[in-house]
Amino acid sequence: MNTSSSSRTQGRTQVKRSANRASHDAAVLHAIIDAAWVCHVAFHDGHDVHCIPTACWRIGNDLYIHGSNGSRMIKCLLGGDCCVTITHVDGLVLARSAFNHSMNYRSAVIYGRFAAVDAQGKRTALEAFMEHLVPGRQREIRPGNDKEYAATTVLRIPLDEAACKVRGGPPEDEEADLAIAAWAGVLPLRETRGAPVVDTGCDVAAPEYVRRWQE
Amino acid sequence: MNTSSSSRTQGRTQVKRSANRASHDAAVLHAIIDAAWVCHVAFHDGHDVHCIPTACWRIGNDLYIHGSNGSRMIKCLLGGDCCVTITHVDGLVLARSAFNHSMNYRSAVIYGRFAAVDAQGKRTALEAFMEHLVPGRQREIRPGNDKEYAATTVLRIPLDEAACKVRGGPPEDEEADLAIAAWAGVLPLRETRGAPVVDTGCDVAAPEYVRRWQE
Repeated sequence: MNTSSSSRTQGRTQVKRSANRASHDAAVLHAIIDAAWVCHVAFHDGHDVHCIPTACWRIGNDLYIHGSNGSRMIKCLLGGDCCVTITHVDGLVLARSAFNHSMNYRSAVIYGRFAAVDAQGKRTALEAFMEHLVPGRQREIRPGNDKEYAATTVLRIPLDEAACKVRGGPPEDEEADLAIAAWAGVLPLRETRGAPVVDTGCDVAAPEYVRRWQE
Repeated sequence: MNTSSSSRTQGRTQVKRSANRASHDAAVLHAIIDAAWVCHVAFHDGHDVHCIPTACWRIGNDLYIHGSNGSRMIKCLLGGDCCVTITHVDGLVLARSAFNHSMNYRSAVIYGRFAAVDAQGKRTALEAFMEHLVPGRQREIRPGNDKEYAATTVLRIPLDEAACKVRGGPPEDEEADLAIAAWAGVLPLRETRGAPVVDTGCDVAAPEYVRRWQE
Protein backbone atom coordinates (compact mmCIF):
# COMPACT_ATOMS: atom_id res chain seq x y z
CA MET A 1 0.00 0.00 0.00
CA ASN A 2 1.35 3.36 -0.95
CA THR A 3 0.75 5.39 2.18
CA SER A 4 2.41 8.47 0.73
CA SER A 5 -0.33 9.15 -1.81
CA SER A 6 -2.80 11.89 -1.04
CA SER A 7 -6.47 10.96 -1.01
CA ARG A 8 -6.88 12.60 -4.43
CA THR A 9 -4.45 10.21 -6.06
CA GLN A 10 -5.79 7.01 -4.59
CA GLY A 11 -8.44 4.69 -5.94
CA ARG A 12 -10.11 5.62 -9.19
CA THR A 13 -7.95 8.65 -9.90
CA GLN A 14 -4.59 6.98 -9.43
CA VAL A 15 -2.82 7.13 -12.79
CA LYS A 16 -0.83 3.96 -13.44
CA ARG A 17 0.09 4.17 -17.14
CA SER A 18 2.62 6.91 -17.99
CA ALA A 19 2.21 8.19 -14.45
CA ASN A 20 4.83 10.88 -15.19
CA ARG A 21 2.15 12.59 -17.30
CA ALA A 22 -0.36 12.71 -14.44
CA SER A 23 -1.54 15.86 -12.71
CA HIS A 24 -3.94 16.42 -9.86
CA ASP A 25 -3.53 20.20 -10.00
CA ALA A 26 -6.88 22.05 -9.98
CA ALA A 27 -5.57 24.75 -12.33
CA VAL A 28 -4.64 22.13 -14.93
CA LEU A 29 -8.04 20.45 -14.57
CA HIS A 30 -9.94 23.74 -14.84
CA ALA A 31 -8.01 24.79 -17.95
CA ILE A 32 -8.74 21.46 -19.68
CA ILE A 33 -12.47 21.76 -18.90
CA ASP A 34 -12.69 25.44 -19.86
CA ALA A 35 -11.12 24.73 -23.26
CA ALA A 36 -13.70 22.02 -24.02
CA TRP A 37 -17.04 22.35 -25.81
CA VAL A 38 -18.07 18.80 -24.95
CA CYS A 39 -17.23 15.99 -22.57
CA HIS A 40 -17.84 12.25 -22.89
CA VAL A 41 -20.05 10.84 -20.14
CA ALA A 42 -19.78 7.10 -19.47
CA PHE A 43 -22.44 5.38 -17.38
CA HIS A 44 -24.10 2.01 -16.88
CA ASP A 45 -27.84 1.63 -17.36
CA GLY A 46 -28.17 -1.74 -15.65
CA HIS A 47 -27.55 -3.60 -18.91
CA ASP A 48 -24.84 -1.84 -20.86
CA VAL A 49 -22.16 0.81 -20.61
CA HIS A 50 -22.81 3.92 -22.68
CA CYS A 51 -20.52 6.78 -23.65
CA ILE A 52 -22.35 9.92 -24.74
CA PRO A 53 -20.87 13.25 -25.86
CA THR A 54 -22.58 16.27 -24.40
CA ALA A 55 -21.90 19.98 -23.97
CA CYS A 56 -20.26 20.90 -20.67
CA TRP A 57 -19.15 23.92 -18.73
CA ARG A 58 -17.60 24.68 -15.36
CA ILE A 59 -18.71 26.88 -12.49
CA GLY A 60 -16.19 26.91 -9.65
CA ASN A 61 -15.47 23.35 -8.57
CA ASP A 62 -18.34 21.70 -10.49
CA LEU A 63 -18.76 20.52 -14.06
CA TYR A 64 -22.23 21.04 -15.54
CA ILE A 65 -24.21 19.35 -18.30
CA HIS A 66 -27.86 19.58 -19.33
CA GLY A 67 -30.45 17.51 -21.13
CA SER A 68 -34.09 16.66 -21.57
CA ASN A 69 -35.78 15.41 -18.41
CA GLY A 70 -36.79 12.20 -20.15
CA SER A 71 -33.42 11.21 -21.57
CA ARG A 72 -31.95 7.89 -20.57
CA MET A 73 -28.65 9.51 -19.76
CA ILE A 74 -30.14 12.03 -17.34
CA LYS A 75 -32.14 9.30 -15.56
CA CYS A 76 -29.14 6.97 -15.27
CA LEU A 77 -26.77 9.68 -14.07
CA LEU A 78 -29.06 10.54 -11.17
CA GLY A 79 -29.02 6.91 -10.08
CA GLY A 80 -25.38 5.94 -10.14
CA ASP A 81 -21.74 6.89 -10.46
CA CYS A 82 -20.25 7.80 -13.80
CA CYS A 83 -17.02 8.82 -15.45
CA VAL A 84 -16.67 12.07 -17.39
CA THR A 85 -13.73 12.50 -19.76
CA ILE A 86 -12.42 15.44 -21.76
CA THR A 87 -9.59 15.13 -24.28
CA HIS A 88 -7.72 17.65 -26.39
CA VAL A 89 -5.27 16.29 -29.00
CA ASP A 90 -2.38 18.73 -29.54
CA GLY A 91 -0.19 16.91 -32.03
CA LEU A 92 1.44 13.80 -33.40
CA VAL A 93 4.82 12.99 -31.89
CA LEU A 94 7.13 11.39 -34.44
CA ALA A 95 9.99 9.46 -32.86
CA ARG A 96 12.80 7.58 -34.57
CA SER A 97 11.38 4.19 -33.61
CA ALA A 98 7.85 2.96 -34.23
CA PHE A 99 6.99 2.25 -30.60
CA ASN A 100 8.14 5.64 -29.30
CA HIS A 101 5.61 7.47 -31.45
CA SER A 102 3.05 9.25 -29.33
CA MET A 103 0.54 12.07 -29.27
CA ASN A 104 0.60 15.32 -27.37
CA TYR A 105 -2.66 15.76 -25.49
CA ARG A 106 -4.42 17.10 -22.43
CA SER A 107 -7.07 14.90 -20.83
CA ALA A 108 -9.17 14.95 -17.68
CA VAL A 109 -11.06 12.05 -16.14
CA ILE A 110 -13.65 12.83 -13.46
CA TYR A 111 -15.42 10.26 -11.29
CA GLY A 112 -18.46 10.74 -9.11
CA ARG A 113 -22.19 11.21 -9.28
CA PHE A 114 -24.17 14.01 -10.86
CA ALA A 115 -26.87 15.79 -8.85
CA ALA A 116 -29.75 17.81 -10.28
CA VAL A 117 -29.59 21.57 -9.88
CA ASP A 118 -32.75 23.19 -8.44
CA ALA A 119 -35.06 25.52 -10.40
CA GLN A 120 -33.27 28.77 -9.57
CA GLY A 121 -29.84 27.21 -9.94
CA LYS A 122 -30.87 25.91 -13.36
CA ARG A 123 -31.41 29.43 -14.69
CA THR A 124 -28.17 30.68 -13.19
CA ALA A 125 -26.22 27.72 -14.57
CA LEU A 126 -27.64 27.88 -18.12
CA GLU A 127 -27.06 31.64 -18.28
CA ALA A 128 -23.48 31.06 -17.14
CA PHE A 129 -23.14 28.48 -19.93
CA MET A 130 -24.30 31.07 -22.50
CA GLU A 131 -21.92 33.66 -21.05
CA HIS A 132 -19.08 31.15 -21.30
CA LEU A 133 -19.83 30.39 -24.97
CA VAL A 134 -20.77 33.86 -26.24
CA PRO A 135 -20.30 36.61 -23.65
CA GLY A 136 -23.08 39.18 -23.65
CA ARG A 137 -25.53 37.21 -25.79
CA GLN A 138 -28.01 36.32 -23.06
CA ARG A 139 -29.51 39.81 -23.05
CA GLU A 140 -30.06 39.84 -26.84
CA ILE A 141 -31.99 36.59 -27.29
CA ARG A 142 -35.38 35.36 -26.11
CA PRO A 143 -34.61 33.80 -22.74
CA GLY A 144 -35.98 30.39 -21.84
CA ASN A 145 -39.62 30.35 -20.75
CA ASP A 146 -41.06 28.37 -17.87
CA LYS A 147 -42.04 25.47 -20.11
CA GLU A 148 -38.55 25.20 -21.63
CA TYR A 149 -36.87 25.33 -18.23
CA ALA A 150 -39.31 22.79 -16.81
CA ALA A 151 -38.49 20.29 -19.58
CA THR A 152 -34.73 20.58 -19.02
CA THR A 153 -32.55 19.07 -16.33
CA VAL A 154 -29.23 20.62 -15.37
CA LEU A 155 -26.76 18.34 -13.62
CA ARG A 156 -23.54 19.10 -11.84
CA ILE A 157 -20.73 16.90 -10.61
CA PRO A 158 -18.02 18.02 -8.18
CA LEU A 159 -14.45 17.99 -9.44
CA ASP A 160 -13.15 16.40 -6.25
CA GLU A 161 -12.28 13.04 -7.77
CA ALA A 162 -10.39 13.82 -10.94
CA ALA A 163 -7.09 13.17 -12.65
CA CYS A 164 -5.45 14.80 -15.63
CA LYS A 165 -2.84 13.49 -18.03
CA VAL A 166 -0.83 15.86 -20.16
CA ARG A 167 1.88 15.13 -22.71
CA GLY A 168 3.72 17.96 -24.43
CA GLY A 169 7.03 18.51 -26.12
CA PRO A 170 9.32 16.53 -28.38
CA PRO A 171 9.65 12.78 -28.95
CA GLU A 172 11.56 10.73 -26.40
CA ASP A 173 13.79 8.38 -28.29
CA GLU A 174 16.05 5.81 -26.78
CA GLU A 175 19.77 6.69 -26.94
CA ALA A 176 20.43 3.83 -29.34
CA ASP A 177 17.85 5.15 -31.82
CA LEU A 178 19.10 8.74 -32.05
CA ALA A 179 21.36 8.01 -35.03
CA ILE A 180 18.49 6.70 -37.15
CA ALA A 181 18.02 8.90 -40.20
CA ALA A 182 14.32 9.55 -39.75
CA TRP A 183 12.76 13.01 -39.34
CA ALA A 184 11.74 13.45 -35.72
CA GLY A 185 9.57 16.10 -34.13
CA VAL A 186 5.98 17.13 -33.59
CA LEU A 187 3.18 17.72 -36.07
CA PRO A 188 0.92 20.13 -34.14
CA LEU A 189 -2.87 20.08 -34.14
CA ARG A 190 -5.15 22.74 -32.79
CA GLU A 191 -8.72 23.90 -32.89
CA THR A 192 -9.35 27.04 -34.92
CA ARG A 193 -12.36 29.22 -35.53
CA GLY A 194 -13.86 29.68 -38.97
CA ALA A 195 -15.59 32.77 -40.39
CA PRO A 196 -19.06 33.26 -38.86
CA VAL A 197 -21.94 32.19 -41.13
CA VAL A 198 -24.94 34.48 -40.71
CA ASP A 199 -28.39 32.89 -40.91
CA THR A 200 -30.59 33.56 -43.94
CA GLY A 201 -32.87 36.48 -43.21
CA CYS A 202 -30.78 37.84 -40.35
CA ASP A 203 -29.95 41.52 -40.86
CA VAL A 204 -28.80 42.20 -37.30
CA ALA A 205 -25.29 43.66 -37.10
CA ALA A 206 -22.74 41.18 -35.79
CA PRO A 207 -22.14 41.73 -32.06
CA GLU A 208 -18.64 41.78 -30.60
CA TYR A 209 -18.49 38.01 -29.84
CA VAL A 210 -19.21 37.34 -33.53
CA ARG A 211 -16.86 40.03 -34.92
CA ARG A 212 -14.05 38.82 -32.66
CA TRP A 213 -14.75 35.09 -33.04
CA GLN A 214 -11.65 34.48 -35.16
CA GLU A 215 -9.23 36.60 -33.11
CA MET B 1 -42.54 -3.31 -30.80
CA ASN B 2 -41.36 -1.54 -33.89
CA THR B 3 -41.07 -4.37 -36.39
CA SER B 4 -40.06 -2.05 -39.20
CA SER B 5 -36.64 -1.24 -37.74
CA SER B 6 -33.66 -2.96 -39.24
CA SER B 7 -31.46 -4.94 -36.90
CA ARG B 8 -28.87 -2.15 -37.01
CA THR B 9 -31.27 0.40 -35.56
CA GLN B 10 -32.66 -1.73 -32.76
CA GLY B 11 -31.47 -2.05 -29.21
CA ARG B 12 -28.35 -0.18 -28.23
CA THR B 13 -27.96 1.70 -31.48
CA GLN B 14 -31.50 3.05 -31.70
CA VAL B 15 -31.23 6.83 -31.49
CA LYS B 16 -34.10 8.30 -29.49
CA ARG B 17 -33.03 11.91 -28.85
CA SER B 18 -33.00 14.13 -31.98
CA ALA B 19 -33.55 11.00 -34.04
CA ASN B 20 -33.65 13.14 -37.18
CA ARG B 21 -29.89 13.55 -36.77
CA ALA B 22 -29.26 9.80 -36.70
CA SER B 23 -27.45 7.86 -39.38
CA HIS B 24 -26.66 4.17 -39.75
CA ASP B 25 -24.83 4.70 -43.05
CA ALA B 26 -21.43 2.95 -43.15
CA ALA B 27 -19.88 5.77 -45.22
CA VAL B 28 -20.83 8.33 -42.58
CA LEU B 29 -19.47 6.10 -39.81
CA HIS B 30 -16.20 5.46 -41.65
CA ALA B 31 -15.67 9.16 -42.36
CA ILE B 32 -16.19 10.06 -38.68
CA ILE B 33 -13.68 7.41 -37.56
CA ASP B 34 -11.12 8.26 -40.25
CA ALA B 35 -11.15 11.93 -39.23
CA ALA B 36 -10.42 11.05 -35.58
CA TRP B 37 -7.08 10.74 -33.81
CA VAL B 38 -8.63 9.31 -30.66
CA CYS B 39 -11.79 7.64 -29.45
CA HIS B 40 -13.24 7.41 -25.94
CA VAL B 41 -13.62 3.84 -24.69
CA ALA B 42 -16.14 3.26 -21.89
CA PHE B 43 -16.06 -0.01 -19.97
CA HIS B 44 -16.93 -1.48 -16.59
CA ASP B 45 -14.24 -3.11 -14.48
CA GLY B 46 -16.58 -4.88 -12.07
CA HIS B 47 -16.60 -1.90 -9.72
CA ASP B 48 -16.74 1.29 -11.74
CA VAL B 49 -17.34 2.66 -15.20
CA HIS B 50 -14.28 4.17 -16.86
CA CYS B 51 -13.95 6.36 -19.94
CA ILE B 52 -10.46 6.42 -21.42
CA PRO B 53 -9.23 8.30 -24.49
CA THR B 54 -7.00 6.29 -26.77
CA ALA B 55 -5.67 6.46 -30.32
CA CYS B 56 -7.79 4.62 -32.88
CA TRP B 57 -7.80 3.73 -36.54
CA ARG B 58 -9.97 1.78 -38.96
CA ILE B 59 -9.24 -1.14 -41.25
CA GLY B 60 -12.27 -2.14 -43.29
CA ASN B 61 -15.17 -2.81 -40.98
CA ASP B 62 -13.17 -2.85 -37.72
CA LEU B 63 -11.96 -0.13 -35.37
CA TYR B 64 -8.53 -0.74 -33.83
CA ILE B 65 -6.82 0.41 -30.64
CA HIS B 66 -3.64 -0.69 -28.90
CA GLY B 67 -2.10 -0.68 -25.44
CA SER B 68 0.24 -2.33 -23.01
CA ASN B 69 -0.61 -5.93 -22.26
CA GLY B 70 -0.87 -5.19 -18.57
CA SER B 71 -3.19 -2.20 -18.73
CA ARG B 72 -6.48 -2.38 -16.89
CA MET B 73 -8.33 -1.20 -19.97
CA ILE B 74 -6.95 -3.94 -22.21
CA LYS B 75 -7.78 -6.63 -19.64
CA CYS B 76 -11.31 -5.34 -19.08
CA LEU B 77 -12.07 -4.95 -22.77
CA LEU B 78 -11.22 -8.58 -23.45
CA GLY B 79 -13.69 -9.65 -20.78
CA GLY B 80 -16.81 -7.69 -21.54
CA ASP B 81 -18.76 -5.37 -23.81
CA CYS B 82 -17.91 -1.71 -24.13
CA CYS B 83 -18.94 1.46 -25.84
CA VAL B 84 -16.58 3.43 -28.09
CA THR B 85 -17.43 7.02 -28.96
CA ILE B 86 -15.91 9.55 -31.34
CA THR B 87 -17.01 13.17 -31.50
CA HIS B 88 -16.07 16.09 -33.74
CA VAL B 89 -17.42 19.53 -32.82
CA ASP B 90 -17.95 21.67 -35.94
CA GLY B 91 -19.43 24.86 -34.57
CA LEU B 92 -21.69 26.76 -32.21
CA VAL B 93 -25.20 27.29 -33.51
CA LEU B 94 -26.62 30.61 -32.34
CA ALA B 95 -30.41 30.75 -32.49
CA ARG B 96 -32.73 33.62 -31.59
CA SER B 97 -33.96 31.89 -28.43
CA ALA B 98 -31.82 30.45 -25.66
CA PHE B 99 -33.16 26.89 -25.88
CA ASN B 100 -32.72 26.59 -29.64
CA HIS B 101 -28.98 27.10 -29.37
CA SER B 102 -27.08 24.00 -30.42
CA MET B 103 -23.77 22.72 -31.72
CA ASN B 104 -22.88 21.31 -35.10
CA TYR B 105 -21.12 17.99 -34.64
CA ARG B 106 -20.45 14.52 -36.00
CA SER B 107 -20.45 11.64 -33.53
CA ALA B 108 -20.28 7.87 -33.68
CA VAL B 109 -21.16 5.40 -30.93
CA ILE B 110 -20.03 1.79 -31.32
CA TYR B 111 -21.11 -1.10 -29.11
CA GLY B 112 -19.63 -4.55 -28.89
CA ARG B 113 -16.61 -6.43 -27.62
CA PHE B 114 -12.99 -6.04 -28.60
CA ALA B 115 -10.95 -9.11 -29.57
CA ALA B 116 -7.17 -9.38 -29.54
CA VAL B 117 -5.42 -9.46 -32.90
CA ASP B 118 -2.90 -12.32 -33.37
CA ALA B 119 0.87 -11.83 -33.69
CA GLN B 120 0.98 -11.40 -37.47
CA GLY B 121 -2.16 -9.30 -37.52
CA LYS B 122 -0.64 -7.06 -34.87
CA ARG B 123 2.24 -6.08 -37.16
CA THR B 124 -0.07 -5.50 -40.10
CA ALA B 125 -2.46 -3.43 -38.00
CA LEU B 126 0.18 -1.22 -36.37
CA GLU B 127 1.87 -0.60 -39.72
CA ALA B 128 -1.51 0.37 -41.16
CA PHE B 129 -1.92 2.77 -38.23
CA MET B 130 1.43 4.42 -39.05
CA GLU B 131 0.48 4.61 -42.73
CA HIS B 132 -2.82 6.25 -41.77
CA LEU B 133 -1.09 8.88 -39.62
CA VAL B 134 2.02 9.60 -41.71
CA PRO B 135 2.05 7.81 -45.08
CA GLY B 136 5.44 6.40 -46.01
CA ARG B 137 7.07 6.79 -42.60
CA GLN B 138 7.18 3.12 -41.66
CA ARG B 139 10.15 2.44 -43.95
CA GLU B 140 12.20 5.32 -42.49
CA ILE B 141 12.02 4.50 -38.78
CA ARG B 142 13.26 1.63 -36.67
CA PRO B 143 10.41 -0.86 -36.78
CA GLY B 144 9.15 -2.51 -33.63
CA ASN B 145 11.28 -5.39 -32.37
CA ASP B 146 9.97 -8.68 -31.02
CA LYS B 147 10.08 -7.46 -27.43
CA GLU B 148 8.11 -4.31 -28.23
CA TYR B 149 5.48 -6.23 -30.17
CA ALA B 150 5.23 -8.86 -27.43
CA ALA B 151 4.49 -6.21 -24.80
CA THR B 152 1.71 -4.63 -26.85
CA THR B 153 -1.85 -5.77 -27.42
CA VAL B 154 -3.81 -4.70 -30.47
CA LEU B 155 -7.58 -4.94 -30.21
CA ARG B 156 -10.26 -4.65 -32.83
CA ILE B 157 -14.00 -4.25 -32.61
CA PRO B 158 -16.40 -4.77 -35.51
CA LEU B 159 -18.43 -1.76 -36.63
CA ASP B 160 -21.62 -3.81 -36.90
CA GLU B 161 -23.41 -2.23 -33.96
CA ALA B 162 -22.95 1.49 -34.39
CA ALA B 163 -24.93 4.68 -34.74
CA CYS B 164 -23.94 8.15 -35.84
CA LYS B 165 -25.47 11.50 -35.10
CA VAL B 166 -24.72 14.50 -37.27
CA ARG B 167 -25.94 18.08 -37.01
CA GLY B 168 -24.97 20.63 -39.62
CA GLY B 169 -26.31 23.86 -40.98
CA PRO B 170 -28.04 26.94 -39.57
CA PRO B 171 -30.06 27.42 -36.40
CA GLU B 172 -33.67 26.24 -36.35
CA ASP B 173 -35.73 28.93 -34.74
CA GLU B 174 -39.41 28.79 -34.06
CA GLU B 175 -41.51 30.99 -36.36
CA ALA B 176 -42.51 33.22 -33.46
CA ASP B 177 -38.86 33.96 -32.63
CA LEU B 178 -37.70 34.99 -36.11
CA ALA B 179 -38.44 38.68 -35.52
CA ILE B 180 -36.17 38.85 -32.46
CA ALA B 181 -33.30 41.26 -33.12
CA ALA B 182 -30.47 38.88 -32.21
CA TRP B 183 -27.66 37.86 -34.54
CA ALA B 184 -28.26 34.28 -35.68
CA GLY B 185 -25.97 31.89 -37.45
CA VAL B 186 -23.07 29.52 -36.94
CA LEU B 187 -19.64 30.11 -35.40
CA PRO B 188 -17.56 27.38 -37.08
CA LEU B 189 -14.86 25.32 -35.38
CA ARG B 190 -12.38 23.07 -37.08
CA GLU B 191 -9.13 21.26 -36.44
CA THR B 192 -6.09 22.75 -38.14
CA ARG B 193 -2.46 21.75 -38.44
CA GLY B 194 0.36 23.84 -37.06
CA ALA B 195 3.88 24.23 -38.45
CA PRO B 196 5.98 21.09 -37.84
CA VAL B 197 8.45 21.38 -34.94
CA VAL B 198 11.67 19.50 -35.68
CA ASP B 199 13.36 17.72 -32.79
CA THR B 200 16.62 19.10 -31.40
CA GLY B 201 19.52 17.37 -33.09
CA CYS B 202 17.51 16.17 -36.08
CA ASP B 203 19.14 17.21 -39.37
CA VAL B 204 17.13 14.88 -41.60
CA ALA B 205 15.31 16.70 -44.42
CA ALA B 206 11.57 16.87 -43.88
CA PRO B 207 9.80 14.10 -45.83
CA GLU B 208 6.68 14.76 -47.85
CA TYR B 209 4.22 14.02 -45.02
CA VAL B 210 5.97 16.71 -42.94
CA ARG B 211 6.33 19.28 -45.75
CA ARG B 212 2.68 18.85 -46.71
CA TRP B 213 1.34 18.61 -43.14
CA GLN B 214 -0.31 22.03 -43.29
CA GLU B 215 -1.82 21.72 -46.78
